[in-house]
Amino acid sequence: MNPILLNCDMGEGFGAWRMGDDELAMPLIDQANLACGFHAGDPLIMARSVELAVAHGVSIGAHPSYPDLQGFGRRHLQCSPEEVRALVLYQVGALDAFCRARGCQLAYVKPHGALYNDLVRDDALLTAVLDACASYRKGLPLMVLALADNDRELRLADEADVPLMFEAFADRAYLSDGQLAPRRLSGAVHHDPERILDQALAIASGESFADIDGKPLRLRADSLCVHGDNPESLAVLRRLRARLDAL
Amino acid sequence: MNPILLNCDMGEGFGAWRMGDDELAMPLIDQANLACGFHAGDPLIMARSVELAVAHGVSIGAHPSYPDLQGFGRRHLQCSPEEVRALVLYQVGALDAFCRARGCQLAYVKPHGALYNDLVRDDALLTAVLDACASYRKGLPLMVLALADNDRELRLADEADVPLMFEAFADRAYLSDGQLAPRRLSGAVHHDPERILDQALAIASGESFADIDGKPLRLRADSLCVHGDNPESLAVLRRLRARLDAL
Amino acid sequence: MNPILLNCDMGEGFGAWRMGDDELAMPLIDQANLACGFHAGDPLIMARSVELAVAHGVSIGAHPSYPDLQGFGRRHLQCSPEEVRALVLYQVGALDAFCRARGCQLAYVKPHGALYNDLVRDDALLTAVLDACASYRKGLPLMVLALADNDRELRLADEADVPLMFEAFADRAYLSDGQLAPRRLSGAVHHDPERILDQALAIASGESFADIDGKPLRLRADSLCVHGDNPESLAVLRRLRARLDAL
Amino acid sequence: MNPILLNCDMGEGFGAWRMGDDELAMPLIDQANLACGFHAGDPLIMARSVELAVAHGVSIGAHPSYPDLQGFGRRHLQCSPEEVRALVLYQVGALDAFCRARGCQLAYVKPHGALYNDLVRDDALLTAVLDACASYRKGLPLMVLALADNDRELRLADEADVPLMFEAFADRAYLSDGQLAPRRLSGAVHHDPERILDQALAIASGESFADIDGKPLRLRADSLCVHGDNPESLAVLRRLRARLDAL
Repeated sequence: MNPILLNCDMGEGFGAWRMGDDELAMPLIDQANLACGFHAGDPLIMARSVELAVAHGVSIGAHPSYPDLQGFGRRHLQCSPEEVRALVLYQVGALDAFCRARGCQLAYVKPHGALYNDLVRDDALLTAVLDACASYRKGLPLMVLALADNDRELRLADEADVPLMFEAFADRAYLSDGQLAPRRLSGAVHHDPERILDQALAIASGESFADIDGKPLRLRADSLCVHGDNPESLAVLRRLRARLDAL
Repeated sequence: MNPILLNCDMGEGFGAWRMGDDELAMPLIDQANLACGFHAGDPLIMARSVELAVAHGVSIGAHPSYPDLQGFGRRHLQCSPEEVRALVLYQVGALDAFCRARGCQLAYVKPHGALYNDLVRDDALLTAVLDACASYRKGLPLMVLALADNDRELRLADEADVPLMFEAFADRAYLSDGQLAPRRLSGAVHHDPERILDQALAIASGESFADIDGKPLRLRADSLCVHGDNPESLAVLRRLRARLDAL
Repeated sequence: MNPILLNCDMGEGFGAWRMGDDELAMPLIDQANLACGFHAGDPLIMARSVELAVAHGVSIGAHPSYPDLQGFGRRHLQCSPEEVRALVLYQVGALDAFCRARGCQLAYVKPHGALYNDLVRDDALLTAVLDACASYRKGLPLMVLALADNDRELRLADEADVPLMFEAFADRAYLSDGQLAPRRLSGAVHHDPERILDQALAIASGESFADIDGKPLRLRADSLCVHGDNPESLAVLRRLRARLDAL
Repeated sequence: MNPILLNCDMGEGFGAWRMGDDELAMPLIDQANLACGFHAGDPLIMARSVELAVAHGVSIGAHPSYPDLQGFGRRHLQCSPEEVRALVLYQVGALDAFCRARGCQLAYVKPHGALYNDLVRDDALLTAVLDACASYRKGLPLMVLALADNDRELRLADEADVPLMFEAFADRAYLSDGQLAPRRLSGAVHHDPERILDQALAIASGESFADIDGKPLRLRADSLCVHGDNPESLAVLRRLRARLDAL
């Protein structure tokens, strides 16, 4: 079993606006999901984010989104599968250009926000994203949500010949099937650092942890999604990094 | 001496809006300069434009622009060289993604509108664009304006190790140094089909033609920029194609 | 009973792109629904569209949309009622500025595309739009879809103290409750000019016409939505104008 | 002589991005220049900013910009006077809609960034902005830069029948003619709180202060532009407010 990786959404400023302090979080993570201009990120931010990731030996993933700067890609937008395939290809190629210019290559694709969520439910959209990955570069992995049962994702990815990476969340409560508990539910987001660390280490060790109803849930994940956009999340991230390094 | 090629700006719709009828012009040209989303073009239009070009065996070039949909990339925007390098890389990678997905590869880069014009005057911007080409892919050519004397462009391109393509215009009047006569000057744009064909064939044959003052001008060009966005320009294009094929 | 009016979506270009030929349709209509920059329309187009409407004595309505230039406002976007109220106020004020500058005033508000459709189903969104109208200017009417039964709209509008205008379509087939037949259904859009004229005159006269199943449907409408963006629709519009003028 | 007012650029977030903490600065100022969606600000932010200003009895001004979210309106964009008039009208009307809905009215117009700077040099653009103000509402004032000699501005404003407000800066060094020293010059921006307070109080009292070369400069100003976007600027603003209140 490979040690679990830490991935973080980064490069999410736009023009004069900043979000989070990537300089502080980058040294602590393994994989940077970089915004590609549709929900955040502009070419200059992308160029600099790639520099920063390379400087810290962090693997670079594309973080494509529906085109919605105003809504930060968090709003569902009714796009055809053909359009979703095209907008993923566009953003993947745009980010990879900065990787090529820096002598490295894009390591994976992790859809953002509403697009990420829509993939859990919509086979045609998931197939469109898989096709974008496969047709962009043979072997380019797609990162998706680790569920109690990922048979659907594995089957569609196998048909498309796309490797999958599974990610889990340490600061979110889960439903019994491994879906994230909707944010409107009380207790959907963990704020207690101990709870977050416990859930992270359980997932990292392949052990079960309590879902939102207190029942045991086990997820097989390759990567944990972490946050570094405020002092609290950074503090948790530092402790998590230290604990994982000590495993 | 290679036969002169015909290049045309294409894929310049956006969302529900169309510009020109690429289906009619594509069979008549050799090189399609495809908009990359910053002055026109969206991912779906780009995907379909690449399909159309491939179907007709037409070479595909990126047509990057300042970010200005409302101004169609025709307005100068004060960008630093670092920003210009980044926005060219972004757009080149975005378009090339569709080429990769279709099994071909981007053949060249031709900046659009105000960015194209700014390169004639600004060494730092030209160097930034050359660096974007060179760092994206070794040997990726940049298309620039053929002048009476292109020493400046050749020197900077040589330093950057970027091959150049030179383009000329059959329907524009020229100043004596090979710059395009500004559109505000009377006679800056040729409307007479015979005049356009004559100028095209002179350039294609390496012969001199009359500049805006009637003096002879000789340009060395690899490609002629043509238009196919209305019945008149299409009619001229059809005749030009036939004349060039008969050379 | 007032004679029925003809309304048309106009000013739907953006930057260098045009849609339809407003100069030809404007003399034939009573009410121009002008795009406000979110699905189409830019400040210059809006200024010129207001000029054109005023020159022809045409009443000016705001045509606000979800913010989605790429999707032309046709895609549902998950916005809160507070956000919908704000985006309608924004667009209404923006367009009214050109009316004020021209010495006239905005006559009504007709939401566009997906926003228009969402109002038929979502009370909170309809209430938000009504509140935007009422708080912008007492007595500013909202134009909504005429249904077999508009009790819901009348009740919510009454609570908000907003007058309603009801619009019907001559070129669309209807379900039995007065909803527009979805475009994916065969026969959802009428193409036969005689059929369109017959349905228009039936609605104008308060008579029943056949719904998509052939059953009689009667709608009370103040205005018919017409199109003038191609030669066929313009020809029908000219005949309809003449028939209505002769009533 | 009226006491000098304090104005501050506000509402400059966009979507999920924030800039500055308007809640802290609003109680300390007299005039809020609210972004109108072209360089920053979206409808929801505008609605909430108007609420906040009204709650603190702060006068509301429109802060229109060239359309350039990515460049935060700081980049010159080549727009015709007709286009500038239209884009100012658009933004003024959009913001005023929120004032109307809240029962107040827009108090003045202060162009933003590159547009503000261009007005100092370009008569046609200044005339276009004056015309937008005059045609939107008789008596709507325009805020411009206080210079050693404002004859040009007064003459053009008088022809357009637009009242002017003059603003000065306490944290910027001035050239001898009252233009702001370009930011690239050393010493162009004051960082020492005492220096900022001294310059503010000199301007407030109609006394001279040292320009960038140390020579005395006197400006007649109605308002001082202040900043509240970080703890340092807020601390200075608090002290300035107290000092002015004690005059």
